[in-house]
Amino acid sequence: AADTDHRIRAVLATHNETSTAVTSDIPAVRGAIDAAGHPALLMADTVSSLASIDFRHEEWGVDVTVSGSQKGLMLRPGISFTAISAKAREAAREGGMPRSYWRWETMLEANATGFFPYTPATNLLYGLDEALKMLREEGLAQVFARHHRLAEATRCAVQAWGLELLAVNPSERSDALTPKLMPEGHDAHSLRRVILDRFDTSLGAGLGKVKGRVFRIGHLGHFNEPMLLGTLGAVEAGMVAAGVPFHRGGVSAAIDHLVATH
Amino acid sequence: AADTDHRIRAVLATHNETSTAVTSDIPAVRGAIDAAGHPALLMADTVSSLASIDFRHEEWGVDVTVSGSQKGLMLRPGISFTAISAKAREAAREGGMPRSYWRWETMLEANATGFFPYTPATNLLYGLDEALKMLREEGLAQVFARHHRLAEATRCAVQAWGLELLAVNPSERSDALTPKLMPEGHDAHSLRRVILDRFDTSLGAGLGKVKGRVFRIGHLGHFNEPMLLGTLGAVEAGMVAAGVPFHRGGVSAAIDHLVATH
Amino acid sequence: AADTDHRIRAVLATHNETSTAVTSDIPAVRGAIDAAGHPALLMADTVSSLASIDFRHEEWGVDVTVSGSQKGLMLRPGISFTAISAKAREAAREGGMPRSYWRWETMLEANATGFFPYTPATNLLYGLDEALKMLREEGLAQVFARHHRLAEATRCAVQAWGLELLAVNPSERSDALTPKLMPEGHDAHSLRRVILDRFDTSLGAGLGKVKGRVFRIGHLGHFNEPMLLGTLGAVEAGMVAAGVPFHRGGVSAAIDHLVATH
Amino acid sequence: AADTDHRIRAVLATHNETSTAVTSDIPAVRGAIDAAGHPALLMADTVSSLASIDFRHEEWGVDVTVSGSQKGLMLRPGISFTAISAKAREAAREGGMPRSYWRWETMLEANATGFFPYTPATNLLYGLDEALKMLREEGLAQVFARHHRLAEATRCAVQAWGLELLAVNPSERSDALTPKLMPEGHDAHSLRRVILDRFDTSLGAGLGKVKGRVFRIGHLGHFNEPMLLGTLGAVEAGMVAAGVPFHRGGVSAAIDHLVATH
Repeated sequence: AADTDHRIRAVLATHNETSTAVTSDIPAVRGAIDAAGHPALLMADTVSSLASIDFRHEEWGVDVTVSGSQKGLMLRPGISFTAISAKAREAAREGGMPRSYWRWETMLEANATGFFPYTPATNLLYGLDEALKMLREEGLAQVFARHHRLAEATRCAVQAWGLELLAVNPSERSDALTPKLMPEGHDAHSLRRVILDRFDTSLGAGLGKVKGRVFRIGHLGHFNEPMLLGTLGAVEAGMVAAGVPFHRGGVSAAIDHLVATH
Repeated sequence: AADTDHRIRAVLATHNETSTAVTSDIPAVRGAIDAAGHPALLMADTVSSLASIDFRHEEWGVDVTVSGSQKGLMLRPGISFTAISAKAREAAREGGMPRSYWRWETMLEANATGFFPYTPATNLLYGLDEALKMLREEGLAQVFARHHRLAEATRCAVQAWGLELLAVNPSERSDALTPKLMPEGHDAHSLRRVILDRFDTSLGAGLGKVKGRVFRIGHLGHFNEPMLLGTLGAVEAGMVAAGVPFHRGGVSAAIDHLVATH
Repeated sequence: AADTDHRIRAVLATHNETSTAVTSDIPAVRGAIDAAGHPALLMADTVSSLASIDFRHEEWGVDVTVSGSQKGLMLRPGISFTAISAKAREAAREGGMPRSYWRWETMLEANATGFFPYTPATNLLYGLDEALKMLREEGLAQVFARHHRLAEATRCAVQAWGLELLAVNPSERSDALTPKLMPEGHDAHSLRRVILDRFDTSLGAGLGKVKGRVFRIGHLGHFNEPMLLGTLGAVEAGMVAAGVPFHRGGVSAAIDHLVATH
Repeated sequence: AADTDHRIRAVLATHNETSTAVTSDIPAVRGAIDAAGHPALLMADTVSSLASIDFRHEEWGVDVTVSGSQKGLMLRPGISFTAISAKAREAAREGGMPRSYWRWETMLEANATGFFPYTPATNLLYGLDEALKMLREEGLAQVFARHHRLAEATRCAVQAWGLELLAVNPSERSDALTPKLMPEGHDAHSLRRVILDRFDTSLGAGLGKVKGRVFRIGHLGHFNEPMLLGTLGAVEAGMVAAGVPFHRGGVSAAIDHLVATH
């Protein structure tokens, strides 16, 4: 609302922020822009949320959504996706910035006939076809419910261990991955090394401000109960082996949650 | 020794019996045959043990060893393997039974020049080449130690759960898989169904005499810590969900064993 | 008819004999057995004909048909197939010869529920599913017509080259592969070596009686016009390079046949 | 030389221009820039030439070379490559144009430790490793000689057919692909359709000014003698079938060239 000159051209929100595992409330951002009567475009990065956490480009009034193949779509990395609103398309046409590779009009013209302006990553298109079949077979609502259930089980484990989750606000906790804060005086990097070397499990690192203080469990995409319990088991084993102070019982708490929900 | 007429032509021992998970002491069988001064051939089935549990065809004096591609060799099913002693070869040549497909001499003649008498499953030979590289990289001693450690962790879990192992004699317990006896009055088939439907994990069934009384966890071939802990977690969840009477703590006991050994 | 004691138990005919490329007239063999009032079983080997040349197990009254995955079914080698008549099944049950691996009853019992008595080559079953889809999409009649057309084009090339086909009787010439007789005094093995080394094309050798006198072009399974013309071109180049006496124009004659037919 | 104000910042030359099949003499372009004492950067597009036609980034003094995975490197499309000189790097740093995805410094910093700033197309990196092994096994000099020989054989065929090559200057004719001009009054599109529908061979189309007047045979990357002869045979068959006026004998001329050279 303070931007009365409308110098802000676009608001970019990351739907699921990977390093902190905070999910942004995209409709609320849209609502705030609209309430301020501001013409800025709303752009959303859904790289680590698409097909794992519910997202609605049109219904939520997003102007530009970008995503990738290698997370919820269960493919190798190599394709990215862009969805655009009529308003975004208009802005790109009239914005005045020349571009070639990123030019939407060229893409849209070729796409209309089922083709691409340049050579696409053809083998991933076959994989995408199969991934979409798998998602439709399970049903998107079931896919989102599965990720929520596995994420909740992970959070039960973290609570039972007595560790802290990074996201303070429960409604913003990500169903795609869960970062855990290390107890003071203990280094996440050493723990991740022990878990990888001794228990053959590779965890994500904290980035930026939480580097060394956080380790992350990813539970997005092609993921199920034994994969989660195996990961939690390896983490529990690693914390014992590394001498990290914590309460046993995280795996049991996750099991209890999985049994109670279905 | 009672077979003074030497009517027994061969003794067949299954190195790792899959339905009961009992490992046979092949050198002891060899010793018994030799002690009796009996000329019978010693044959060993190593389908579910080769490359997961130590086995020594020549050193142990086995005459015929058979195995397959789909267990410890970590390949798709489709090739089987036969190792034979000079004595077995002699017996086949002079035994008097005509055979075509199973004729070793035809095989050996072609193999001598690097070929096969018939069209082999060529694509599995490429996979075999890679599997042997992986086994050599890890080292066979390490491969066997890994399987023993994961098997011991499984047995710790079973003991903590208060379930019974099928094999009574500890020295005969298999490092390739672990069957568990269900408590009286509970059906293994129903439990396996709950674990598959609700926790996405497929377990082996008891066969023959122990059908319905036993469920089996396989931990052979390409297998590591999180795979084991995920499987044990799914079993623990399944037993809670199915109302099977047992003590919690199996996964924790397995974790403790994995931490204590390395 | 001369076998009045019915000592002959079965007649085995190779539908497409690979080394000579002679196709046997299976219905005629059936007719001869029936005309003689002989109870012998009729068995057919269709390894190199199935799905390339028309074959009808039931309609032609064959008792046992065997085939493989690696020719007309366009798969890697690794599965074989057996089709049996009620009469063959009866003979196997009552024949008196004990067998285990080859026992049809065990197979049929398991197959009835969609399973196998032993571990099958599972990944080839996925490939088989796809291969059958491809054959149905093209249509079996079209598949056979394609092979006949490519085989006729090959024979046109051989005739234009002034070489001799091995099969004397035109109606018995195989649509799956074409062997060519070398001119007197020229060795097929040397020619095949030149074609492989200089023109990157591997041809089949003559076997048995025609060893060294014959080279073979296979045109079965997943095969089309440019594959055929490329092979014929490499052969023509090889014959020039190896100094084999022949007339140029084989590739042109094949092209003319392909243009004239469609 | 006329650009005395040095307003031209870079000269972009396409090493192998795909639609016309003209190979540019990159060292000559470099020489001309140097002779004029002009500071412009020299940039080369090697998408359809790299690893099929000799190219030397450093030796020829190129500042920026770009290429792709899907031609001479024999991979699926999905990765592109950029090689830059110190001068190009300096220009990018000081050029004043802000960029994110295309920023070389970020790439170079990550690459120094063997990583990428963003998620790369990982599976293609495994393929690239294998492709480079194959190129080294054959030897780059042999790879270039193979492509030249196959290109010359193609040009022999075109000449025998009485068709015209698009590139007037022989020294500029591409060893990666060969476009052919249709005789006046005949449409390349119809011919390509006949060759695809009746002879299962897909040819490239003329683009831009030569649309409809040209069809192209690609002979780059993973390509050998039977592939070339099969393609030429399908083209010859297609021209007969489509009633295009031409002289037979193109395939024969190509065979003669392949026999004469090795």
